[in-house]
Amino acid sequence: MKQEDFYVKTLGSNNVKSPLLQTPRADSPTYRFITETDRILYDNSLDGHKKCKETGEEPISFEKAGPHDNLFFEPAKTKVGIVTCGGLCPGLNNVIRSLVNQLNYRYGISRILGFQYGYEGMISKYNHSVVELTPKMVDTIHLFGGTILGSSRGDQDVSQMVDTLEIMNINILFCIGGDGTLRGAHAIHEEIEKRKLKISVAGIPKTIDNDINLIEKSFGFETAFTIANDFIRFAHNEAQGAYNGIALLKLMGRDSGFIAAYATLSIQEVNYVLIPEMKFDLYGPYGFLKSLQKRLEERHHAVIVVAEGAGQHFFDEETLKKDASGNIKNKDIGMYLKEKINEEFKAKDLSFSLKYIDPSYIIRSAPANANDSKFCSLLAQNAVHAAMAGRTDFVVGNWSDQFTVLPIPATITKRKKIDPNGELWWNIMEATGQPSRMVNPEGFESIKKE
Amino acid sequence: MKQEDFYVKTLGSNNVKSPLLQTPRADSPTYRFITETDRILYDNSLDGHKKCKETGEEPISFEKAGPHDNLFFEPAKTKVGIVTCGGLCPGLNNVIRSLVNQLNYRYGISRILGFQYGYEGMISKYNHSVVELTPKMVDTIHLFGGTILGSSRGDQDVSQMVDTLEIMNINILFCIGGDGTLRGAHAIHEEIEKRKLKISVAGIPKTIDNDINLIEKSFGFETAFTIANDFIRFAHNEAQGAYNGIALLKLMGRDSGFIAAYATLSIQEVNYVLIPEMKFDLYGPYGFLKSLQKRLEERHHAVIVVAEGAGQHFFDEETLKKDASGNIKNKDIGMYLKEKINEEFKAKDLSFSLKYIDPSYIIRSAPANANDSKFCSLLAQNAVHAAMAGRTDFVVGNWSDQFTVLPIPATITKRKKIDPNGELWWNIMEATGQPSRMVNPEGFESIKKE
Amino acid sequence: MKQEDFYVKTLGSNNVKSPLLQTPRADSPTYRFITETDRILYDNSLDGHKKCKETGEEPISFEKAGPHDNLFFEPAKTKVGIVTCGGLCPGLNNVIRSLVNQLNYRYGISRILGFQYGYEGMISKYNHSVVELTPKMVDTIHLFGGTILGSSRGDQDVSQMVDTLEIMNINILFCIGGDGTLRGAHAIHEEIEKRKLKISVAGIPKTIDNDINLIEKSFGFETAFTIANDFIRFAHNEAQGAYNGIALLKLMGRDSGFIAAYATLSIQEVNYVLIPEMKFDLYGPYGFLKSLQKRLEERHHAVIVVAEGAGQHFFDEETLKKDASGNIKNKDIGMYLKEKINEEFKAKDLSFSLKYIDPSYIIRSAPANANDSKFCSLLAQNAVHAAMAGRTDFVVGNWSDQFTVLPIPATITKRKKIDPNGELWWNIMEATGQPSRMVNPEGFESIKKE
Amino acid sequence: MKQEDFYVKTLGSNNVKSPLLQTPRADSPTYRFITETDRILYDNSLDGHKKCKETGEEPISFEKAGPHDNLFFEPAKTKVGIVTCGGLCPGLNNVIRSLVNQLNYRYGISRILGFQYGYEGMISKYNHSVVELTPKMVDTIHLFGGTILGSSRGDQDVSQMVDTLEIMNINILFCIGGDGTLRGAHAIHEEIEKRKLKISVAGIPKTIDNDINLIEKSFGFETAFTIANDFIRFAHNEAQGAYNGIALLKLMGRDSGFIAAYATLSIQEVNYVLIPEMKFDLYGPYGFLKSLQKRLEERHHAVIVVAEGAGQHFFDEETLKKDASGNIKNKDIGMYLKEKINEEFKAKDLSFSLKYIDPSYIIRSAPANANDSKFCSLLAQNAVHAAMAGRTDFVVGNWSDQFTVLPIPATITKRKKIDPNGELWWNIMEATGQPSRMVNPEGFESIKKE
Repeated sequence: MKQEDFYVKTLGSNNVKSPLLQTPRADSPTYRFITETDRILYDNSLDGHKKCKETGEEPISFEKAGPHDNLFFEPAKTKVGIVTCGGLCPGLNNVIRSLVNQLNYRYGISRILGFQYGYEGMISKYNHSVVELTPKMVDTIHLFGGTILGSSRGDQDVSQMVDTLEIMNINILFCIGGDGTLRGAHAIHEEIEKRKLKISVAGIPKTIDNDINLIEKSFGFETAFTIANDFIRFAHNEAQGAYNGIALLKLMGRDSGFIAAYATLSIQEVNYVLIPEMKFDLYGPYGFLKSLQKRLEERHHAVIVVAEGAGQHFFDEETLKKDASGNIKNKDIGMYLKEKINEEFKAKDLSFSLKYIDPSYIIRSAPANANDSKFCSLLAQNAVHAAMAGRTDFVVGNWSDQFTVLPIPATITKRKKIDPNGELWWNIMEATGQPSRMVNPEGFESIKKE
Repeated sequence: MKQEDFYVKTLGSNNVKSPLLQTPRADSPTYRFITETDRILYDNSLDGHKKCKETGEEPISFEKAGPHDNLFFEPAKTKVGIVTCGGLCPGLNNVIRSLVNQLNYRYGISRILGFQYGYEGMISKYNHSVVELTPKMVDTIHLFGGTILGSSRGDQDVSQMVDTLEIMNINILFCIGGDGTLRGAHAIHEEIEKRKLKISVAGIPKTIDNDINLIEKSFGFETAFTIANDFIRFAHNEAQGAYNGIALLKLMGRDSGFIAAYATLSIQEVNYVLIPEMKFDLYGPYGFLKSLQKRLEERHHAVIVVAEGAGQHFFDEETLKKDASGNIKNKDIGMYLKEKINEEFKAKDLSFSLKYIDPSYIIRSAPANANDSKFCSLLAQNAVHAAMAGRTDFVVGNWSDQFTVLPIPATITKRKKIDPNGELWWNIMEATGQPSRMVNPEGFESIKKE
Repeated sequence: MKQEDFYVKTLGSNNVKSPLLQTPRADSPTYRFITETDRILYDNSLDGHKKCKETGEEPISFEKAGPHDNLFFEPAKTKVGIVTCGGLCPGLNNVIRSLVNQLNYRYGISRILGFQYGYEGMISKYNHSVVELTPKMVDTIHLFGGTILGSSRGDQDVSQMVDTLEIMNINILFCIGGDGTLRGAHAIHEEIEKRKLKISVAGIPKTIDNDINLIEKSFGFETAFTIANDFIRFAHNEAQGAYNGIALLKLMGRDSGFIAAYATLSIQEVNYVLIPEMKFDLYGPYGFLKSLQKRLEERHHAVIVVAEGAGQHFFDEETLKKDASGNIKNKDIGMYLKEKINEEFKAKDLSFSLKYIDPSYIIRSAPANANDSKFCSLLAQNAVHAAMAGRTDFVVGNWSDQFTVLPIPATITKRKKIDPNGELWWNIMEATGQPSRMVNPEGFESIKKE
Repeated sequence: MKQEDFYVKTLGSNNVKSPLLQTPRADSPTYRFITETDRILYDNSLDGHKKCKETGEEPISFEKAGPHDNLFFEPAKTKVGIVTCGGLCPGLNNVIRSLVNQLNYRYGISRILGFQYGYEGMISKYNHSVVELTPKMVDTIHLFGGTILGSSRGDQDVSQMVDTLEIMNINILFCIGGDGTLRGAHAIHEEIEKRKLKISVAGIPKTIDNDINLIEKSFGFETAFTIANDFIRFAHNEAQGAYNGIALLKLMGRDSGFIAAYATLSIQEVNYVLIPEMKFDLYGPYGFLKSLQKRLEERHHAVIVVAEGAGQHFFDEETLKKDASGNIKNKDIGMYLKEKINEEFKAKDLSFSLKYIDPSYIIRSAPANANDSKFCSLLAQNAVHAAMAGRTDFVVGNWSDQFTVLPIPATITKRKKIDPNGELWWNIMEATGQPSRMVNPEGFESIKKE
């Protein structure tokens, strides 16, 4: 990590005075506007501090988010576009609503447009109409899930999108989306720079998996594990409702297991958590199935949570070739485990009852809970502050419980993951009692030997 | 229907005085105990009344449930068994808790045993221990779903079960379960009668599908469609979240579509309801896919609810033979529709996005909502009243919003279904706007023609 | 009760064909439109049937609700008004939404107006604007509580209101409200009749207390006791959280105790239910405080639910005069009980902890639950059917789980109450274990003797 | 702040090896046990870092929580006591359950006792029995609110409490409670030290108001504002449900307004937030009532949230004397505002409708939400780690999203408050649009002038 990767680009300053509390009464609370030196340390350990002191190095730090005294954009002349991309995530409507309210009520901007169905909405050939967004129109949208703007996946032609921004005289574009969306936003920014336009591109990171690099927490994540929490409880009921009852719950988490991990910690009734960061064998003395069988013999029920990205090595070419059964059609780890558990325990003539639960879209399309709602509001408020001050090619993030502004490229180089040697995974092992590693010492033996 | 099928068997009367409010003060409210003539009309229409008056026939009526003045069982000497069978259903723990509390607090019975894991628990070879049930033990179980007794499916040897009752000196057996369980309870009763024992067998009907004959409403059903209601809303979010978004939600309902229907009426955001009672074609001018395509062209999103038992004719031998694609492996209607919609609209090069949601066990294992909880309490209270009065081979039911006592055989001859010519289906059509029938006139044409 | 009081007035028939399924395909499900003889028995007991058979009397019956083949109003020329009056109740927005959707989608009526802030909205001097209601506008309003039209209490000048209807060419007026509102609707109808106008006045009964005469269940009531259910659980936590903990929860119920009773039956953790229908003494050997003290000595905690209309005799002139303390300012029974319990147990030097909970508006302003939502939809659909068929001065009700149409006057003559000698109250006593009557034999002794 | 105030006391080390993952397989994930230098910076700003670098001062830091390699207590010989004090707070049962599970399953301690009804349970004269706590006993208690141990307020004799610990051979005492409880725990520690006993006293800070010094977040707080969020929405329904509707919601917050502030940010439908940290006038040109009136004239409805500790200056002796009306009996700010608003607007002959909502215990006795549940689990796990390692006179806290261990005295010297010049209050002003200060320039003028 290098400090220079964490300075955010800016369109410059026009010395437009912020309309925010410029003339409070003398005895009013005063808010310290953000200054250039307001930065937050990446490493907040005492050891980190000491090391920097010794080496004389400047510690890595991130720009703090907040209102700026001088703006780049003049509210009366500013026109804003908003677009939501990728899969649904709780809080999308909260972000849209808060952007509109903040722009309108606090900065006095009334021309706010919504592009429909993601980046498609910025490409003329799709013919999706543009929606005018007013406080009245977004008044109650935070009460339900989804996105009123609609969404889509996939890239679109960057040049055409910037054409649209030019033609429509958009000054600020808010792109709400994940990894791919932010890459798109960055490409849009580069095209804007090439054309020497003064358009701010602001990213609002969306990942239900909470796996964006250098961002502590993303919106919708807490709602996701909150709902999963209930479902784990219900899975527990199913597991206890039968002799040797097994409940297998698949949760989101393509590259990281945060939802599975946090849900497990919140309900404390899970016996196995399987995540992408931790490989595991099915067979052999240290394999998962052996451990599961032992658990059933002792307690007669088990709750398993598997992240959708776990155990992908079972679907590697080579593994598939070696697999005795020969024909795995389903590369869904939930379905795969269901099959394998059934196969194994039937073969062993165990009396058991397996229930498979895949809540998927039920979680993605739920409304945000209160804490996520609050988070979405502040995220949107801070995105507006940064954009109005002329920041561009940026995302709003958060670190050590404070809001930050980061360059888009810094957040899309890699994904955040659970550290198998870290505190969170340790907590999981304390909470589940599962073996610290379910891999046979002599190497991966995930394939059943005949 | 014949009236003689609706007289409930009784073990006789021992003239044991009910301990319930026998010595209230003169000015206390007095409760009229149930009398022999307390019966509820099956048909409560004026036309029905007139017809009976004309013909002189006695109208069909059901025994009203409630406390009896004279009991068959002496509380101090009575020992009770409780067993829960079949799949989970919201309210099982409420029923168990209310049985225990009613027996203990109102009738003074302290010897209450729970058989574990369904009828298996009454068969010695399974070695499931028996649980003693006390008010303290069941104090908070109504707060969560599942059954603390565990459950299992399938028949067990009737003779062995009655042996167990004899050996353990059980006087009353409460069997909580569906169709199969009630058949089992009836068989137990017949074996008891054969042995000339004085054991009451009480059925408490459990069907999340609400499809037991002559019983207006079964516990857990309202909770089921209440949860489904939320999921339909979320499905709606998914459908609107994409261009030509289709959300397909599979709900319970093997033989009847009540959950799908009631959930649809409660949220009023469903565009198609597919139930077992209404055959439909996929292809052809009147088929479902044509109608769905039209809907997308007009409104650009659609929410479909399908009951698990709908469209089973697609899996008939003959149909499967005729099917062009030749190889349907999945006899799950939800998965089948998902495949067929994808196939058809991809072939037509439509831009669309299909999300499939199957909440299954999430609904079955949830705790009962308030109204179901109240219903479970009264159901259990009335089951205890009837059993203590010596009724046997009976179920507690309800009709015209009143609790009834019915002979088990009367309720298991056939299933309750939605009448395609009745009010409920009409309401569905008003709520969805779907075509009144999606079948091609020239006969079923459910198979794609090449 | 006389049968003639249950015939609903009608504006006549214009032989307009209903647009509902008039030309289904021959093989479609057919719906039997409502006929003149479709009536539901008031008394559905076998005894009732026999009595009528013996005496030859026609039994009391109510008109069944449903679609009519012949309409009075021609959809293309029909203009509709909607008004909501009185306090908030869960489901108001569901009713508004379903009226609009049913009128628009099923009958093809596009001119639907909402009067704002209750009957005030029909009086010009208040200057409240009129709102045009479209399916789009009401699309998501069922997701939150309250009423988008606003409401107000109190009567308005009937003549002016009918002037408004005339000036605006309203053909049907839907009045959603309680007792007072229905009286108002009836007065409007009488004025309309006097002026020989052809305007239908349709009442949709709203009472969170579920106390409208001859109507089995009113919308919002189930939601109310569902929420109360949670609060009772929380009250139970408070009661158990302290030594001799007492939790006192005030619920709605001005004239009847249905909410208190149903909430109690649903959660089964209440020890005392105090309702308007059952007088009780505070002091003396049979008084409430004595019983409460005994309960604390035995169990060390108690949960009390009191309906707002209970114990009003404590506030009678004479009683107040006799009261030792002389100065009761608060005629709120919840606050009164709180004071009296505190006073009594402090005087007795008991160690105890009393928590008082008054959720009031939290319940009234909540959104409707799923079952109430379904109920609201069907209620609104049936109100539209009846109005379109020319019925007037009517309310939609329900009886024996079927929808009915009743003349307004029949429902406002008296209130529905809990029968102290009936089944419901008996169930309450079984659920709480409270004394059957807490009144001292020698007469009311509600005042503390010095 | 001085660093020496942040070193936690320890009973020493007995070099007992932690049973946690001592012999993982070579290829297992390894957890780095906590070392002496694991500390977290109090100030994580870059400016703070630079300043320390310049001055050479060591920055303030807190001990990081986590498992220790060497324990002080030998699990087989360790006996633990748990006590919960003060008012209810969501999460109490989660903390109890996690303490029991962590002690039992992870450290192998089976002798765990619960003192009942707070510190009273440690005093023999109260005669409260002691409860043995096992994993089975606490299995489902996290599903409901309250505390299974009961609670009480107030101090008890410290010497007698330590006598109890000695007599019962308790080695670790977990005290779960607020300010007063922690003072008590500190006093117990001092008595223990005086007696030269080796007993660890561990504090688990409980404050629904989230106002404990140097602790970022306390359990139950998020649940509290989550529930408040719903109630604000309902208040909004009430406000919009009437012409010039005012909904006034009182929330918790005796010394700080965090619940009011966070709830407001989460739902974004509040127009005024009144908190203890911000004085306000009622009357005069800048007073609250003037602003409220203006809001009604413009928007015709208003939602007000008031923390219970706001506006206490209205109840000062001097203020009360000056008050025109002369006789304020109620020192409850909610009731006070209700009276004053009614008084003022009635005097001005405004048409308005005021609804007052005080949810109080409904919030305190609710179960913890998922995020709070997770937090409670980790808090308890970390409390056990620290106590087993011999730390004493400590609380577990958290800072910058990491768990910390702090000396009790450091946390009870003052309360955490909202900074009127800080970011949170600024966010509130952005969210509500309320005036930055509602005080008349010439000084407090909270009393109505005649």
